Amino acid sequence: MSTKSDDTHLHAVRPAASRRSDVAPFLAMDVLRDARTLEAAGRRILHLEVGQPGAPTPAGVRQAAERALADGAIGYTEALGTAALRHRIARHYGEAYGLDVAPARVVVTTGSSAGFVLAFLACFDPGGRVALARPGYPAYRNILQALDLATVWLETDATTRWVPTPALIEQAAADRKLDGLLVASPANPTGTVVPAAGLSDLVAAAAALGLWFISDEIYHGLTYGEPADTALRHDGDAIVINSFSKYYCMTGWRIGWMVVPERLVRPIERLAQNLYISAPALSQAAALAAFDCTEELEANKAVYARNRDLLTSALPRLGLERVLPMDGAFYAYVDVADFTNDSSEFAARMLHEAGIAATPGLDFDAEHGRRYLRFSFAGATADIEEAVARLDRWLKR
Amino acid sequence: MSTKSDDTHLHAVRPAASRRSDVAPFLAMDVLRDARTLEAAGRRILHLEVGQPGAPTPAGVRQAAERALADGAIGYTEALGTAALRHRIARHYGEAYGLDVAPARVVVTTGSSAGFVLAFLACFDPGGRVALARPGYPAYRNILQALDLATVWLETDATTRWVPTPALIEQAAADRKLDGLLVASPANPTGTVVPAAGLSDLVAAAAALGLWFISDEIYHGLTYGEPADTALRHDGDAIVINSFSKYYCMTGWRIGWMVVPERLVRPIERLAQNLYISAPALSQAAALAAFDCTEELEANKAVYARNRDLLTSALPRLGLERVLPMDGAFYAYVDVADFTNDSSEFAARMLHEAGIAATPGLDFDAEHGRRYLRFSFAGATADIEEAVARLDRWLKR
Repeated sequence: MSTKSDDTHLHAVRPAASRRSDVAPFLAMDVLRDARTLEAAGRRILHLEVGQPGAPTPAGVRQAAERALADGAIGYTEALGTAALRHRIARHYGEAYGLDVAPARVVVTTGSSAGFVLAFLACFDPGGRVALARPGYPAYRNILQALDLATVWLETDATTRWVPTPALIEQAAADRKLDGLLVASPANPTGTVVPAAGLSDLVAAAAALGLWFISDEIYHGLTYGEPADTALRHDGDAIVINSFSKYYCMTGWRIGWMVVPERLVRPIERLAQNLYISAPALSQAAALAAFDCTEELEANKAVYARNRDLLTSALPRLGLERVLPMDGAFYAYVDVADFTNDSSEFAARMLHEAGIAATPGLDFDAEHGRRYLRFSFAGATADIEEAVARLDRWLKR
Repeated sequence: MSTKSDDTHLHAVRPAASRRSDVAPFLAMDVLRDARTLEAAGRRILHLEVGQPGAPTPAGVRQAAERALADGAIGYTEALGTAALRHRIARHYGEAYGLDVAPARVVVTTGSSAGFVLAFLACFDPGGRVALARPGYPAYRNILQALDLATVWLETDATTRWVPTPALIEQAAADRKLDGLLVASPANPTGTVVPAAGLSDLVAAAAALGLWFISDEIYHGLTYGEPADTALRHDGDAIVINSFSKYYCMTGWRIGWMVVPERLVRPIERLAQNLYISAPALSQAAALAAFDCTEELEANKAVYARNRDLLTSALPRLGLERVLPMDGAFYAYVDVADFTNDSSEFAARMLHEAGIAATPGLDFDAEHGRRYLRFSFAGATADIEEAVARLDRWLKR
C-alpha cells in the first residue's frame, strides 16, 4: 500500500478546473499577503488595505458567546436562523428606521457573502442579467459569474456623485432585458450614500422595469452626515442584505442577515438548507447581543470619523486632491493619476518603500481602476497619522 | 414618510423566484418542525431524525474557543483557512491514514456544505453531469441543481451492498458523457463503507473516463468494523471533502475541510474569497484542538456502537428485518414496506402517535424512498431504548 497520495499514473486525461472558477482574485488579498511577508522580515507595515474594523468585537458580544460556549450544545439551528435572532433583527428595523418588519421575512446568513449567493440563486436563473454600479465591491460580479449570471455595468463618476441613476438603468435595460439591480449605500469603495429621494427613484426605476432590487446595506450605521436610508422604506419588495461584520465589528464571525419579500422566504429556506444547513450557531447566539453594544460601537465610529477628518485635510495637502465623497463606510477612494498610470504597481512600490498597504483600484473597476487606490481608515488613528506622514515623505521623493 | 415597509403598488409585474431555487426541501427539517410543535405542547419526543451527535462539542475544543474569545481579535482569516489549521489537518492524514498530504492542498471550509459548493463550482461548468449513488444525501443533488448541474443517478441496492459499481458508472457514461462522480463512504443514509479495494476500483473507473472523483468522507472515524479508507490513498487527484461536524461533534460550528489537487487550489481560493471570504475564525481556532480530543470522541463513538447493537438486535424482533449495513455513520435505513407504502405518512403518524421522529426515505431516494425510514442513533442510549419500546407497542397496535 502506497504512503504517497499522488498516484498520477491513473489519469490519461486529467479533468481541468471549470471556466466559471476563473473569477478575478482580490488584489487586496495579494497586497495583504505581500504585507505579511514584509512583516515576517521585521518591517512595520501600516494596514490600510483590509476592509475590517481595527477594534475588537464588542465585549457584550463576546460575553454572549462565552455563555453559549458554557452551555455546550452548539448544534445546527433552523436554516433561516434562530427565532430569537430573527426577532431581534426585526426589532432593529423599528428602532433604527421606524419600520415594521415581520421576523418571518428575516433570514440569518453566514455573513453578507451568503446573502448575495442566496439572493442571486433565489432571484435569477442561469443567464440572468444584473446591473451593478462601477466602481463597486468585486465579489458581486465574481459571485454572479460563478453562478452563471451576467453583470451589466452602470458606469458612475463624479457627475452623479458615483451613484447610478434611473437614466443609466433604463439605458442598460433598453439594450437587452435586465433581471435585477444591485445598489450599495454607503458604497464600497466610494463611500457614497444614496439620499432617501435618490433611493426612492432607483427603487421606482427598477419596479417599472420589473427588476429585482437588491440593496446592500452592510455599511449602515457608518455614516458621517445623514444616516443611510433602507430600501425597505421605499419598497417592501426590495431584498436587503446586511451583516454584523462592519458596524458591529464581527467580521470573523461570518454572520449577517437578509430581509426578503414573503414569496422568497421558502425558496431561500430550501436553498439555505442545502447550501449552508445553518449559519454558525455560536455567532448567532453572540450577535443577539450586538444591538445592545451601542456605546462601544459608537466610540469605534468616532475613531473612524476622526480618521476621516484627518485624511480629508491631509490628502489634498499631499497633492491627492480628488478624493471621493466618504459619506459613509471607512474608505477613501483616491485618484492617484497625477502620480501614476498604474495604481497596482504604485501600490506595490508604496508597500515596499513606504510600508503602507492599500488596495489597487482594479479590484473595484477593471476599466478605470488604474487611476485609483482605496485606503481603509478603519484602523487606529495613530496608524492613519503615521501613514499620512510616510506618504508625505514618500511622494516628495 | 411611511412607517410600513410594503409599498406594493410600485410593482406592475413583480419578478418571481428563480426556477433553480425550486429544489426539494429537507423532509427531515419538516419532521423536526412538527416535533418541536408537539414538544411545545408538552409531548416528549424522541429525536431520531437529526443527523447530529447528541454529545456536546468536546471540552478541549470549547476551551480553545474560549481562549480565542479572550484574545478578542476575531477577524477574517486567509480564504483557504489559517496556516495553523491547514497544517494540523495535513498532519491528521499522516496520523490517521499514514499518508503524506501537503498543507498547501488543504482548504478549510464553512462546513462540508461549502466544500461541495466549492468543489462543484471549481470542477463543473453549467450543464455539467455528475453521477451520484441513490439513495444518498439530498443536498448533493439540490446543490447541483442550484448551480445548473445535472445529476445522473446510479441506482444501488442490496445486491451490491448499496455501493455504486464501475459497471454502473460506465453504463451511465455510455449514455452521455459524465463530468464527475461523487462517492460517500461511510454513506448517508445507508451506512455502507466502501472497502479499500472497491474504492480503488471506483477511482480507476472514474480516471479511465476522465471524471473528477469527489469523495465525501464526512463520516470517517465513525465505523464499527474496518476503518474507512480515504480516496487519497488511491488517487492523489481525488477531491476529498470532510468536516468537523460528525465524529468531532461540531455541527453548529460550520467548519470542515477539503483536500484538492494542486491545480484546483488557486481556483478554489478565488471562489472562496468571493463566496465566503473565510470560514468562521473562532471555529477555525477551536477546530485546531479537535484532533487531540480522542478520548472524549471515542467515548461518544462507543455510545453509537451500543445504540447500533441495540437496533441490530431489536429491529428484526419488531418485524423490521431489512436494515441496511450500518458499517459506519450513525443511521439505520430501514425497509418499512411490510407496514406501509408511504413512509412519509408513516413517519408523520409515528411522530404523532408514538412520539418518535424519523426521516422519510424520500429525502434520500425520490424513486424508492417510500419504502424506507432513516433512524439516527447518534443520541443517548436511553432514548434509543425508549424508542424501541415505543415502536414495539405502536407497531403491535
